[in-house]
Amino acid sequence: MSNGDLYETDAQKLEVATAEALLGAAEGGIPIGAALFTADGRLLGSGHNRRVQDHDAAMHAETNAFRNAGRQQSYRDTVMVTTLSPCWYCSGLVRQFGIGRVVIGDDLTFHGGQEWLAENGVEISVVNDPRLISLMSEFIELNPRLWNEDIGTD
Amino acid sequence: MSNGDLYETDAQKLEVATAEALLGAAEGGIPIGAALFTADGRLLGSGHNRRVQDHDAAMHAETNAFRNAGRQQSYRDTVMVTTLSPCWYCSGLVRQFGIGRVVIGDDLTFHGGQEWLAENGVEISVVNDPRLISLMSEFIELNPRLWNEDIGTD
Repeated sequence: MSNGDLYETDAQKLEVATAEALLGAAEGGIPIGAALFTADGRLLGSGHNRRVQDHDAAMHAETNAFRNAGRQQSYRDTVMVTTLSPCWYCSGLVRQFGIGRVVIGDDLTFHGGQEWLAENGVEISVVNDPRLISLMSEFIELNPRLWNEDIGTD
Repeated sequence: MSNGDLYETDAQKLEVATAEALLGAAEGGIPIGAALFTADGRLLGSGHNRRVQDHDAAMHAETNAFRNAGRQQSYRDTVMVTTLSPCWYCSGLVRQFGIGRVVIGDDLTFHGGQEWLAENGVEISVVNDPRLISLMSEFIELNPRLWNEDIGTD
């Protein structure tokens, strides 16, 4: 799609996050991607986990997409689309900035703060795309130490 | 202090975060600083809010200090020292990575997720340093729009 196009459906939005996850995998990184859209489907920014690539522990997929979206005055009408359920760090990002809706590609391989977000008024949609579940579960099986580092599990 | 020195007391640790906040102010940025230490007082990394300087909405003081501390396998015995009570985003960071203790320079000007952290086993210490309360409250009074942008308030 070109820059001015609208990503109207959740499936279209999740393709952008998925492409970011696959780009991260191709770079040798942790394969999680995310993208931030306006409510009507305009892409504000997308990104992927950069722990390995940039040695940056602060860049989860969601925080990288948030960064790449640039400075915004309001997030109320935005949608965060992520290939994996947001951890507490990324759930805190969503809550603090009042992002209105989160679309989750996979909440079976990892299950973060999504109920807490729902309790606090964030609309949550779960896709559970078999491609994403395979991508992440295979990555974790092959890289348990790296995965544990990424979510702060000793 | 030189690099190998230990910052043993909370007051010494808070001086590092305060110096970061003042550096941010001198750069024309939002004057919030933070630093991550080992339990015995070794500085792992420090940083400050970089919204204005880098046009980076993802770099709050705590996330910048966390980034600058580099990749760590465990945060259980670390202490996050911040000049201002951590917002939900930064509180989520602390919870996800299992940072054991948070020292807060000012929780009067802004009050974030510190009770939620305490409920989840994080040790919280509040200093309420008059210098920091003045620094932040004067900044907010002069820059309400920028401050609201930084905490996602419409």
